[in-house]
Amino acid sequence: MAACIALDAMGGDHGPVEIIPAALDILKKFPDINLILVGREEVLDPILKANGAAVNDRLRIKHAPEVVEMNEPPSSALRSKKLSSMRLAIDLVRDNTANACVSAGNTGALMAIARFVLKMLPGIERPAICTTMPGINGNTHLLDLGANVDPDAAQLFQYAVMGSELTKAVQNIASPRIALLNVGSEEIKGNDRVKQAASLLANSHLNYAGFVEGNDIYSGNVDVIVCDGFTGNVALKASEGVAGFLMHHVKHEFKKSLYGKLAALISMPVLKSIQRKIDPRRYNGASLLGLKGIVIKSHGSADRLSFFHAIEEAIVEIEKQVPDKITNRLEELLIYR
Amino acid sequence: MAACIALDAMGGDHGPVEIIPAALDILKKFPDINLILVGREEVLDPILKANGAAVNDRLRIKHAPEVVEMNEPPSSALRSKKLSSMRLAIDLVRDNTANACVSAGNTGALMAIARFVLKMLPGIERPAICTTMPGINGNTHLLDLGANVDPDAAQLFQYAVMGSELTKAVQNIASPRIALLNVGSEEIKGNDRVKQAASLLANSHLNYAGFVEGNDIYSGNVDVIVCDGFTGNVALKASEGVAGFLMHHVKHEFKKSLYGKLAALISMPVLKSIQRKIDPRRYNGASLLGLKGIVIKSHGSADRLSFFHAIEEAIVEIEKQVPDKITNRLEELLIYR
Repeated sequence: MAACIALDAMGGDHGPVEIIPAALDILKKFPDINLILVGREEVLDPILKANGAAVNDRLRIKHAPEVVEMNEPPSSALRSKKLSSMRLAIDLVRDNTANACVSAGNTGALMAIARFVLKMLPGIERPAICTTMPGINGNTHLLDLGANVDPDAAQLFQYAVMGSELTKAVQNIASPRIALLNVGSEEIKGNDRVKQAASLLANSHLNYAGFVEGNDIYSGNVDVIVCDGFTGNVALKASEGVAGFLMHHVKHEFKKSLYGKLAALISMPVLKSIQRKIDPRRYNGASLLGLKGIVIKSHGSADRLSFFHAIEEAIVEIEKQVPDKITNRLEELLIYR
Repeated sequence: MAACIALDAMGGDHGPVEIIPAALDILKKFPDINLILVGREEVLDPILKANGAAVNDRLRIKHAPEVVEMNEPPSSALRSKKLSSMRLAIDLVRDNTANACVSAGNTGALMAIARFVLKMLPGIERPAICTTMPGINGNTHLLDLGANVDPDAAQLFQYAVMGSELTKAVQNIASPRIALLNVGSEEIKGNDRVKQAASLLANSHLNYAGFVEGNDIYSGNVDVIVCDGFTGNVALKASEGVAGFLMHHVKHEFKKSLYGKLAALISMPVLKSIQRKIDPRRYNGASLLGLKGIVIKSHGSADRLSFFHAIEEAIVEIEKQVPDKITNRLEELLIYR
């Protein structure tokens, strides 16, 4: 399968300095994948050169004179940045020049522009951001992470369909177990939104497993966890906060005495192995689901390895044609309801 | 200050086996505190004896023939368990026999019974659960953790007042910085509820610091973080989940080879010191705020040390008369508005 992916080469905290090496790594690993770097030619060219590379058949540059700033309001980016690297990368997907695009830029702007340019899939009212969470017993896909802070029950149902199809494609699971995030696992718990969504899911042909609680995000006992974007965003960032807090204390205690430093030195192979296992960079690349096209959001702070994984996510979704699968599944569910 | 605290001695996963030793530790450390163990006399007496103790002037038993089960629906506990250890402990607070009560039992039942028996403070519509979260730069009080999954903006404002007064009392901070939990720190972000609450807080005499995100729960950059009970509950449990996930990998990697085991042995003093620093037992004891009385909820899985800290929380709140302070502050704010 030959496919082409457009990269918003100007997005993210580090921009092309990390994105270009990641792109070169992808070209090496995936001989059927071509890439288009979208951004300021005068910025990209020297970085390509510095990495011992140049444009060729598999790696092109699409010049984009503007850049969406990380803190720019989405409405302003949508209205006045029609020649930004983000906008032109999405335009390439709309024009079928690229099969997907990847950006580490401003999430709100990416959502707004992607929705405006690509439009929603039939039957999906609002997009959702979905990512893979590592867990003790396996991975879980969590959505929505903040695309829509106030969805209704029908939209949560649509998220369940989207999350289920993505998980089938990416994890090769025939019938993913889908749960709703709630404050308790008993049926009487929760707000009206989750109770209504539970009733929609229980009466569907989806593999609905009931309610789960926040800690289940990291148990890996279900394959898909659905929640509103407000809760999902807070849960994800609180998790980052805890991890940072724990790492802070680990580093501090190992560094504060000579004995600690020695113990750290001796433990280094084990500490490195732990770090590899829990490395969040391996899970980088959130999917903007529900659009007529594949758009992957990389973490803003992504480095080379991180961005590489975000592009890999795009490759899998192209190969498995995730947007088509969502549309087909939604049609099936509506027919059989 | 001589004060008396009623302990629901039957609550929690371990019940009196952990609660009685914790009670004895409290009596030793706080000569002005008396305790009433509420529960089945025939269960409590032998455990007291096994711990080399007996009832006396400072440690009494109030016999309660019934127990609220951990998974019992709150409505059933409220209606049909009028002689439960939980109910009688709260009754002691209402009758001014005890200055506070502490329970590790069923949270929903504790909320429902406390609200029914003690009633709400004037100006507070719904109770909130508030706990101390450790952070890199200090502690933060987070509320609500699940008392009310669908509060309105006015109720979030009331939480801010309650959290602020609790923090003043417990942390000795003159004017605690209060923030609202949101999906971004920009003013345009969030759902209607947080936007309206932000406007109420910005126009009040409270020390309002704006929006914070999930990771800020562990930064310690503000003193109080206010959110709806759905989000707060998920954030807390997701944090427990991440911590469990990380610990799982740390243990696994240190145990999987002989070298790892040796490194663990050498690092043991450092690992123990880290564990002490981040020990969640030190933060046990959530306050049920907004009631005409002090009710502390201990984690259900609390052990001796954990339950000890929950009783300590009750002691501080008695000393600082937290419910009165909340009432006074709310009156002031309404006058000056």
